[in-house]
Order: sequence, then C-alpha cells, then structure tokens
Amino acid sequence: MDAILDGLKFDGNGLIPAIVQDAENGQVLMMAWMNREAVAQTIETKRVTYWSRSRQKFWIKGETSGHIQLLKGISVDCDQDALLLQVEQVGAACHENFRTCFYRDIVDGQLVENSERVMES
Amino acid sequence: MDAILDGLKFDGNGLIPAIVQDAENGQVLMMAWMNREAVAQTIETKRVTYWSRSRQKFWIKGETSGHIQLLKGISVDCDQDALLLQVEQVGAACHENFRTCFYRDIVDGQLVENSERVMES
Repeated sequence: MDAILDGLKFDGNGLIPAIVQDAENGQVLMMAWMNREAVAQTIETKRVTYWSRSRQKFWIKGETSGHIQLLKGISVDCDQDALLLQVEQVGAACHENFRTCFYRDIVDGQLVENSERVMES
Repeated sequence: MDAILDGLKFDGNGLIPAIVQDAENGQVLMMAWMNREAVAQTIETKRVTYWSRSRQKFWIKGETSGHIQLLKGISVDCDQDALLLQVEQVGAACHENFRTCFYRDIVDGQLVENSERVMES
C-alpha cells in the first residue's frame, strides 16, 4: 500500500481531491479532500475518511450523522492527483440532506434544484 | 450569469475543480480546474474549457486532439466550491487514450487497469 500512497500527488497542503460516486447508480455525490493518512484509513477500514480543511482534522464521514460511506472501490486518475471512490451511501451525502451535494443545476443563469431532500432538515 | 459566477468559491489561485461525467452513462471521465473566465466560456460556448495549471493558459478541451467535450449540463455543490459537468465526450477524455482518466483501480495495494484504450496511443 505504501507504494500506492507514494505514487499519489498531494498538493501543497498535502491533500488530494476525492470524487465520490454512488456505486449503485453512478450518481456523483460529493467531492472532498484526503491527506495520505485519510487515504490509507479509507482503504483499510472501508469507512470513507476525509481531511476537513475547515476543521483541520480527520472527518470520518457520517460519524455524527450516521450518513456513512462504505468504500466499494477506488480508482486513481492518469496524473495520480485525483481519486474516484465508489461508495455505498447511507442516507444523504449532503449536510443539507440532499442525496448529492450537487443538487443545483445552473440553467439560464439561475440555480435550479434538481432533486428533493431525502430527509427532513 | 454574473450572479452565478460571483457565488462560486474559487480557491487561492482563483480556481474551482470541475468533475466531468459522461452525460449518457454517468461514467466519471476526469477532473480539471477552471477559473472564472473558463466557467463563463464553458457555459457560453458549450465547449468545455479549463485553466491549465501546468501551462497557465486556457485549455479548450480537444482543441488539438479533437477529443472535445460538449456541455450538456452543469451543477454546483452545496458549498459552491466544486462543479459537476455532464458532457458529450468525443473519443477519449484521457490523454493516455483511455475513455476515462480513472482507468486504474487500487486493488489489494496494486494498480489494476479497469478498461481498455479506446484508441491507439
């Protein structure tokens, strides 16, 4: 695993973007950031774990909300500076209680919601 | 459109990550970066245009290779610091001639190709 981690290109803050996709239907749920240890922990535990840039600490997705992400697969891009995760998402990926964080489309210069909340706020 | 662009959160380098998804089958093809002008151009021209960090210039995807991306839809995430694009991809998104840049999975500590090149290198 060290060889894989050594091959990844982390940015100046030691982070790599992780795109998260619903393993069942391919919906892109969110994008967040991982440091080396978060990548290692995610692969080892199968519980998707990020590095929170705002809180400057590890962020085990769903630890407080219960909206966990179980890792089903992980891919790396050609430049090894981005990750794509396939996950089983429990509940809502978005803290706004939408299934996906990308719940708004840009249409004719307006933001238009493309889905409903999956649970009450 | 200015109101939309004003609402986006660009990073310290004036960039926002753009995740690119095949509008037909949902496959995630790549991730690249846009500045404000690239977002505006992409929406206006429907030809996906990035900001190349390595070359420090606009990068109209497929301008030399012919592997253009036609914008079919664009979404923004809850924090407005990431974009998700639905595109019609001509040919290969990846410069390595794979359909997707995410052509390698991490499996048991090894990188394993998950697809074939769609055209000869």
